Amino acid sequence: MLVLFSDFGPAGPYVGQMKAVLQRLAPAVPVVDLFADAPARDPRAAAYLLAAYAAWFPAESVFLAVVDPGVGGARAALIVEADGRRYVGPDNGLFELVRRRARTTKVAEITWRPPALSASFHGRDLFAPVAARLAAGAASAAEERAPDFGRRRDWPDDLAEIVYIDHYGNALTGLRAAALPASARLLAGGRCLARARTFSDVAAGEAFWYENANGLAEIAVNLGRADAALGLGIGGKITIDS
Amino acid sequence: MLVLFSDFGPAGPYVGQMKAVLQRLAPAVPVVDLFADAPARDPRAAAYLLAAYAAWFPAESVFLAVVDPGVGGARAALIVEADGRRYVGPDNGLFELVRRRARTTKVAEITWRPPALSASFHGRDLFAPVAARLAAGAASAAEERAPDFGRRRDWPDDLAEIVYIDHYGNALTGLRAAALPASARLLAGGRCLARARTFSDVAAGEAFWYENANGLAEIAVNLGRADAALGLGIGGKITIDS
Amino acid sequence: MLVLFSDFGPAGPYVGQMKAVLQRLAPAVPVVDLFADAPARDPRAAAYLLAAYAAWFPAESVFLAVVDPGVGGARAALIVEADGRRYVGPDNGLFELVRRRARTTKVAEITWRPPALSASFHGRDLFAPVAARLAAGAASAAEERAPDFGRRRDWPDDLAEIVYIDHYGNALTGLRAAALPASARLLAGGRCLARARTFSDVAAGEAFWYENANGLAEIAVNLGRADAALGLGIGGKITIDS
Repeated sequence: MLVLFSDFGPAGPYVGQMKAVLQRLAPAVPVVDLFADAPARDPRAAAYLLAAYAAWFPAESVFLAVVDPGVGGARAALIVEADGRRYVGPDNGLFELVRRRARTTKVAEITWRPPALSASFHGRDLFAPVAARLAAGAASAAEERAPDFGRRRDWPDDLAEIVYIDHYGNALTGLRAAALPASARLLAGGRCLARARTFSDVAAGEAFWYENANGLAEIAVNLGRADAALGLGIGGKITIDS
Repeated sequence: MLVLFSDFGPAGPYVGQMKAVLQRLAPAVPVVDLFADAPARDPRAAAYLLAAYAAWFPAESVFLAVVDPGVGGARAALIVEADGRRYVGPDNGLFELVRRRARTTKVAEITWRPPALSASFHGRDLFAPVAARLAAGAASAAEERAPDFGRRRDWPDDLAEIVYIDHYGNALTGLRAAALPASARLLAGGRCLARARTFSDVAAGEAFWYENANGLAEIAVNLGRADAALGLGIGGKITIDS
Repeated sequence: MLVLFSDFGPAGPYVGQMKAVLQRLAPAVPVVDLFADAPARDPRAAAYLLAAYAAWFPAESVFLAVVDPGVGGARAALIVEADGRRYVGPDNGLFELVRRRARTTKVAEITWRPPALSASFHGRDLFAPVAARLAAGAASAAEERAPDFGRRRDWPDDLAEIVYIDHYGNALTGLRAAALPASARLLAGGRCLARARTFSDVAAGEAFWYENANGLAEIAVNLGRADAALGLGIGGKITIDS
């Protein structure tokens, strides 16, 4: 399975052009959209989101992951293998948390270049063809690098920031709930929030945090929008009161 | 065909995770996105939308329909069969209008539970596997219930409210046009609107209502946005002047 | 390959209903979403966008292209063939630039009508079945017309206006970069913008224009939103300072 993760937006032409490439080069491989609205131009926040959501997918999945504000510049292009899952995308930290949490990892730099490479859309011209060939069982030219190539050792294991606001206004943090004390409270938007199991366990309009279905600590309001009620946005800091 | 109807939003990770489940369990069944932006957390408004749009699909379709603010709580999980179409989703009234308008219906409660069931994402963990197996010809464990199980007898046959604002700003009501007198006027947003056949039959900028391509009374402005021009939003009341 | 281009929006029911038709009539033909958010009700701006993005697709592609504010009125329904690519949609100028830039073109008027034709959704009822049959190798009833049928000779070769704002806030113009002097500056939003190769070639927060991956002149801000920073929107005029 090819899994798409990008900040390209849900409607415009970018995801579709990548899918046209995948369709041409790996027509038999199913494609699933995971995120088309990862934090825009923010590989650091996106890295925590990707690590939480990729873990749910089967080991043979190939992730085409493009949050790439440095496109066309000097950054390398990577294939990362982590616990069997393979990731294709830019070398800007996007795979840092996936790598850190894996038992086994390998990293290679993509040395293949397409005949026509635009300066601004490597998702379509470089990463999609490489991901398609990997998923179809072929290989693109890539050179193995040392395990530390492209690592971001200074990023924290869990990020006490909001990394995503979903369609309901729920605020996903970069914190794994399992890394927090069971009784921890989260301070966000000037409020101190207790933990609950799920929405219907609290009163309508009440704010809380809970472990979401992919293991992240998520701030929500039952039958309301947490982003509006608490003034939350991507990059907003969280304090853990444990 | 598997038809997706949810309030999960067009971009985030929820629809994609459901599709990954469908792909794994029913790889040969085509999947179509109907609504990813049904009225958020509002099974009542969504029920009128679903009934209007589901009727257009062929009888063998399986609808995976998730507008589920009570997820993780006490509400049951249903398989509803109505005129041959099957619907999988929560027992919160979402299928009330589909059932009421069908000649033949059956209802069963899903008793199967997956090995891992999150508290907040039954769309992925419970409803998607059940819908996939139904569409692939297998069955999930479900127990037939009495015809009245989960019914919402007190909801009206047609809902004189706005149930959806589309991408153009058109306001779809929960009223079937066929249930209205041909000369009916609709009062909405402080305006009295006459019926027209379609957009190009009225002047640019003129507000009107018409029977949309799925039979609902819809309020629109030719070459403009009705939501902005008339101050309309989901839940807004309509008065019928017949 | 069937390529979808519309102003239907990314989430609502319109694209999905068209795809259900394509699935039924051409189940073996892959479908790619190009734009679901082409300029709403604006076939002129959309025509420049379509011509720039269609050229990237292989010659055997069939484009189902629906920006159709005159639906249900007197406008004809067309099949246009341009350099081997086929386009199905309304006769309102949407294919003008595709036709003008092609070496070989043919145009036919769709005379087939479905048993049930709504007044407001020809994308689903008329254009999708015709496009599906074309892509599957069959033909719909259509009558060849003179080469000038439906042309908009008075539209410019390049449009000095903004025709699309993407998910990042970048502003795509209707100008082909190759049609501009290499040293041209663009005046937009009261600013005079120099050309750059790509985002990372300018400082963070700096506005510039560049040739995007589909050949259009595009106005952007490195690590920022050009639409907000420069006050840009669809239809905004551009001046070329060459």
